[in-house]
Amino acid sequence: MTSQTLAELAGTPGVAARDAATHDFVFNHSMLRIKDPVASLDFYTRVLGFTLLRKADFEQAKFSLFFLALIDDLAVVPADPDERRQWLAVQPGVLELTHNHGTETQDGPVYHDGNSDPRGFGHICISVPDVRAACARFEDLGVPFQKRLSDGTMKSIAFIKDPDGYWIEIIQPTPIA
Amino acid sequence: MTSQTLAELAGTPGVAARDAATHDFVFNHSMLRIKDPVASLDFYTRVLGFTLLRKADFEQAKFSLFFLALIDDLAVVPADPDERRQWLAVQPGVLELTHNHGTETQDGPVYHDGNSDPRGFGHICISVPDVRAACARFEDLGVPFQKRLSDGTMKSIAFIKDPDGYWIEIIQPTPIA
Repeated sequence: MTSQTLAELAGTPGVAARDAATHDFVFNHSMLRIKDPVASLDFYTRVLGFTLLRKADFEQAKFSLFFLALIDDLAVVPADPDERRQWLAVQPGVLELTHNHGTETQDGPVYHDGNSDPRGFGHICISVPDVRAACARFEDLGVPFQKRLSDGTMKSIAFIKDPDGYWIEIIQPTPIA
Repeated sequence: MTSQTLAELAGTPGVAARDAATHDFVFNHSMLRIKDPVASLDFYTRVLGFTLLRKADFEQAKFSLFFLALIDDLAVVPADPDERRQWLAVQPGVLELTHNHGTETQDGPVYHDGNSDPRGFGHICISVPDVRAACARFEDLGVPFQKRLSDGTMKSIAFIKDPDGYWIEIIQPTPIA
């Protein structure tokens, strides 16, 4: 592992200077398809602390979208649905879950987590103040682990799995004592 | 489509009250595997305006990680690599790209975008101040589109494709005039 300066990073092959036309661009959300919204909303709200901030139902096309974010101070969220939608569209760190109606009644897993062939998407990551405390709580809640802190060589990160089997990395910003 | 109040959203089946143990949890990043870091870094920095803020090379395990974010004011980014790493771990809206060394010399696509069988991950989304201006610039830059603004029934959103074919939704927060 190496620790580059910002100048070294800016000189990495491929890296270009920022075009002023991209100012105010926001990495707003990542979208995952889910089998069962009741299971996924329970997981993301109860286990991880997300708040459901928008739901859109497309009855004719038979799908629903759920937008969630980790918001510590709900007072910042506009009550008016239109205002809230505009506010939500400029927040970074939003999770969009897509439910194609009817998948919840199918047997077994419906979606592919991206970590076996064909690979692509890998995981989402939640940063927590205390990764040991967070993982102990996940154990208490019966959350499945892909990798416990004690597994493998990287003792400071864990991976849990959401109801569809998507991997969620758990990290803490500071070194583990 | 429906526009729910926050109380209605909180009453959606599956949604649980927030556990205080989840305070200060941050949805930090989403990880995508990439075939060629030169192509992907060029795309995410030059076309979308991301800044490369951390690179980690694992020579023995033959992979590298690239962490990027959309940062309008680079003065907020710590210069010291350790401080920057800790700062980056509590930011929302970070993109992690994983390069397994050697894939860049393979012919054709290496990774699966998640939008054909087996499906799962769908897309990431960038919010822009002016979706028409952004899409006109993407056309000028020769960026491939999955869906132009004029395609289909949803005239306010577009989807472009990154060098691996991952879909990137482009939205603007306000209604299109």
